[in-house]
Amino acid sequence: MRIRNIKNADELIYESPYLIKNPYLYIGEYKTKVFKNNNPIHLEIGMGKGNFIIDMAKNNPDINFIGVEKYSSITLRALRKLKDINLPNLKIINIDALELSKVFKKEISTIYLNFSDPWPKKRHHKRRLTSEIFLRIYDDICLENIIIQKTDNIGLFESSIVSLSTYGYKIVDISLDLWSTDKVTSETEYENKFRKQGIKINYLKAIKK
Amino acid sequence: MRIRNIKNADELIYESPYLIKNPYLYIGEYKTKVFKNNNPIHLEIGMGKGNFIIDMAKNNPDINFIGVEKYSSITLRALRKLKDINLPNLKIINIDALELSKVFKKEISTIYLNFSDPWPKKRHHKRRLTSEIFLRIYDDICLENIIIQKTDNIGLFESSIVSLSTYGYKIVDISLDLWSTDKVTSETEYENKFRKQGIKINYLKAIKK
Repeated sequence: MRIRNIKNADELIYESPYLIKNPYLYIGEYKTKVFKNNNPIHLEIGMGKGNFIIDMAKNNPDINFIGVEKYSSITLRALRKLKDINLPNLKIINIDALELSKVFKKEISTIYLNFSDPWPKKRHHKRRLTSEIFLRIYDDICLENIIIQKTDNIGLFESSIVSLSTYGYKIVDISLDLWSTDKVTSETEYENKFRKQGIKINYLKAIKK
Repeated sequence: MRIRNIKNADELIYESPYLIKNPYLYIGEYKTKVFKNNNPIHLEIGMGKGNFIIDMAKNNPDINFIGVEKYSSITLRALRKLKDINLPNLKIINIDALELSKVFKKEISTIYLNFSDPWPKKRHHKRRLTSEIFLRIYDDICLENIIIQKTDNIGLFESSIVSLSTYGYKIVDISLDLWSTDKVTSETEYENKFRKQGIKINYLKAIKK
C-alpha cells in the first residue's frame, strides 16, 4: 500500500507547471531559462507542504522562489495547494539537498532553513542542513551567501550558530523568541502549530562574503 | 549615610594584598611584575562579590586571574571573602571597564563576562560589555581574544552574538541552557540564584584571531 501511494504521488506531481521535472538541465541558467528575468533567487530547503514559500512568493513578486523537498508525497501536497494559483516567480523541485550542487551554480541569493530535521543523535549531526557538508554545497550554489533559519529545536539552533560562525558566516541578526519581535514573515505549518502552543521560535540571519 | 559607607569601603579595600591599588602602573607588565610568572591572565569584568573568580583561581592554579569591579563597596565584599585565603594567582582591580586599555596592553588571554548589566534601553546598548566600544578595548588589552559570556538576559545575549560575530569573532561554543550541559564551571552569585529558580542560563565562547 505504501509503495502504491508514493507511486501515485510521483505520477501526479509530474502534471504541475510549478514542478521543474529535470532540474539538472538548468544548472547556472535558472534566471535566464526558468524565470526569464534577473531577479534574485531564494531557495527554501525542506519546504514541506509549502505554506512558507507560497506565501513568500505571493508577497514578494520581485524575488524568484524555489522550494526544495525530498519526499514526493509531501511535494505533491504543496503542488496541490498551487492548483488554482498563478505565481510565475515560484518553482518546486523534488530532490535531496545533497544533490543541490548538481542543480544550481552560483545563482542563489538566500537560503531558508525552516524547522529542518534536528537529527538529535550525535552520529547524525552531519545530516543537519547547517553542517559543514551542506555549507560547502551552499558555497557552490550561492551567488551571495545569506542563510535565514527558523527552528524550535535548541540543539539544532546551537549547532547551527557554531557551524555557521566557525565556517566564516557572520550572524547579523538573531532572536530566541521570534514572535516577540517585528521580524515575523511568512509562517510555515510547524511554526503556526508551535506559536499556538506557545513554543518559542529561534531565528537567525547569517551572511558570508 | 550613603557617602560615609562608600568612604569606609574605599578606606578598607586599600588594606587588602589582593587589591592592585594603582593598576595603571603595571600596563604591559602584569606577568613579569605582578604575577611574576608566564601563565596566561584571565580577566572577569564586573566580578561583583567575586564568587566566580575566587573559585576559578582556587581550581586553576596555573592561570592568573584578575577581577575587575567598578563599585568600591562591592569590591570590598569580594576582598572580605579573601581575608583568610592565600591565592597568589588572583588580583582585584577597582576601576570602570572603560579604563581597561589604560591598565592592560596585549596581555589578557580570556575575558569572562558573567551576568553583565543588560542595559535594556536602546539608547544604553552601547554600554553593554559586548558593544563595539568594548570590543575595541578588548583588542587593545588582549594577547588572545577569547570571550566567555554567561547571562540569563536574552536581549543582552542576542545582541552579544550579533556584535561579536559582525566584529570578527567566531562563536565556537554556545548553550541556551548551560545547566543542561557538561560545560558548567564556577558559579556566580546570580547564577546560583537563577539556577535555584529554574531560570535558564545562556552561555557562549567566542574567539577572534
